[in-house]
Amino acid sequence: MSISKRPLILVTNDDGITSLGIRTLVELMTQLGDVVVVAPNSPQSGMGHAITMGEPLRLYKTDIFVDVDEYECSGTPVDCVKLARHYVLKDRAIDLVVSGINHGSNSSINVLYSGTMSAAIEGAVEGIPSIGFSLCDFREDAHFDHARDAILQITRQALENGIPKGTALNVNIPAFEGKPVKGIKICRQADARWRERFDKRVDPHGRNYFWMSGDFVNLDAEKASTDEWALENGYISIVPCQFDLTGYQAIAAISQWNLGNSLPV
Amino acid sequence: MSISKRPLILVTNDDGITSLGIRTLVELMTQLGDVVVVAPNSPQSGMGHAITMGEPLRLYKTDIFVDVDEYECSGTPVDCVKLARHYVLKDRAIDLVVSGINHGSNSSINVLYSGTMSAAIEGAVEGIPSIGFSLCDFREDAHFDHARDAILQITRQALENGIPKGTALNVNIPAFEGKPVKGIKICRQADARWRERFDKRVDPHGRNYFWMSGDFVNLDAEKASTDEWALENGYISIVPCQFDLTGYQAIAAISQWNLGNSLPV
Repeated sequence: MSISKRPLILVTNDDGITSLGIRTLVELMTQLGDVVVVAPNSPQSGMGHAITMGEPLRLYKTDIFVDVDEYECSGTPVDCVKLARHYVLKDRAIDLVVSGINHGSNSSINVLYSGTMSAAIEGAVEGIPSIGFSLCDFREDAHFDHARDAILQITRQALENGIPKGTALNVNIPAFEGKPVKGIKICRQADARWRERFDKRVDPHGRNYFWMSGDFVNLDAEKASTDEWALENGYISIVPCQFDLTGYQAIAAISQWNLGNSLPV
Repeated sequence: MSISKRPLILVTNDDGITSLGIRTLVELMTQLGDVVVVAPNSPQSGMGHAITMGEPLRLYKTDIFVDVDEYECSGTPVDCVKLARHYVLKDRAIDLVVSGINHGSNSSINVLYSGTMSAAIEGAVEGIPSIGFSLCDFREDAHFDHARDAILQITRQALENGIPKGTALNVNIPAFEGKPVKGIKICRQADARWRERFDKRVDPHGRNYFWMSGDFVNLDAEKASTDEWALENGYISIVPCQFDLTGYQAIAAISQWNLGNSLPV
C-alpha cells in the first residue's frame, strides 16, 4: 500500500526508453502522480501485441528521468506491462497505464500493428485504466509541445472517471503545424488498410532481400465519425479500443452454416 | 486470371514452415484448391500482429510439400500474408487465407498474442475470407487426425458462403483424447487473462534474466457461450474475430468527459 494519495502511473512506449516522446510523457505524468517507467531498451515499433516466449527477458534499472523509478527491458511493449504488473509493481496497485508518446500515427488500422497501443490494451486486459498517446509525426525530433495540455486534460479525466471496462483509449494528436489543435473528438476507428510495396534489392552476396513500405488507403465511406477525419481536420482523436474481438454481428450468419452437429450459441 | 476453377488458398502459420501443424493443413487444403504457402522460416509464436519495420525481409522458395508453390519468409506471420498478397500473389485473387494448424490453443485472450490468428486477421483486413486453426496441444508431435474432418467442413463452408466482412474465424480444436470431437460450437471470446510469473535466474556472467510463464485465469461469469466452455466440454469452438477494435459501447461515457472544446461523435 502506498502512503501517498498520488496515483501510481506506469509509463511505457514502443520507441524505446530514450525517445523524446516518452521523455515528454514522463514529464507530464510526474505532474499528476507517482511515476514508474518500464520501457523497451530498443525500438519496438510495429511489434503489435507480441510477447517474448522463446527467450529470456532482461530488466535493468536506469537513470534517465528525474524522481522516477525506471527500468529498461529487452522485450516488447506488452512484455514491459507484464513485467511491471507482475514483477516490478507486484505488490502495488497501478492506477493508470500510459504508453507513448509514439513518434507516428496509430490511428485506424495502425492500432493493430502498434506496440504503443498494444501496451495500453494489455493494461486494460489487466483491468487498469490505460491510454496510448501517439503523435502524427514520426520524426525523432518531433515537436510535442502543442500536445501537452490535451494529454494532461485527457489523463486527468481518465483518473477522475475511470475508463469503461474492457477498453483502452487510443489518442492520436495531429503533427504540429504552427497552431494549436482545434479540440478533441471522440471517434470510431476508420476502415483503412495499407497497400504494401516490396522494394527488392540484392545484397553483396547476391541474395535478394525486401524492404516493406506501403501506401495508406482510407476505405471509409462515412468519414466524419472516424479518427482519420478528426486528425485530417486538426482535431485530436480518441477511440476507445476493446480487446474482446468477438464479431457478434457475424455470429448469426455463421450459425446458418452446415457444420454437422453444431450447437447454437 | 487463373484458368483453374479451383480456389486459390494461401496457407501460413506461426510455428514455422516445417511444423507438423502446417503440413497437416497443407495436405487438407490441397483437397479443396490450389495451395500457395508463405510461412515463417522460424517459430513465431506469440508474435501477435507484429510486422518487420526496422530490417529487411528474406523470402526463399522451398520444396517441403507436394504440388504446392511454397516460400519461407524471415518475418512474422503478418509479414507472410503481406508478402503473399502484395508480392508473391500480386496478380492473382486469393480466395481464402488459412493459418495454422497452431500447436497450442488460441482461444479467449490468447487471440491477441497469437501469430496464427493475427495472420488470419490480416487476411480479413485485405478483404479475403480467412480462418485460423489451432489445436489445444502445444506438443511438437501433437495428434491432428481427429481435427481433419471438421477443418475440411468449416473450410468448405467458408468457401461456399464467404465469411462476414470485417471478421476472421478463430477455430480451436480440443486436444485428442482418444475419441472424436463432440461437434462444433459458434462462440464468443471468453473473458480471461494470464497471471504472469517471472522466474528470475542468474546467467554465468552474474546478470539477472527472467523467464516469463503464467497461469491462465478464466474471469467469465456466464461461461456457456464462450470458446473456453466449448473446448473444455469437447467441442470445437469458432469465434468470428473483428479488426475494428472500436468499443462503441464506451463512446457515450467518454463523450461526457470534460475535454474542453470537444466535438460530439
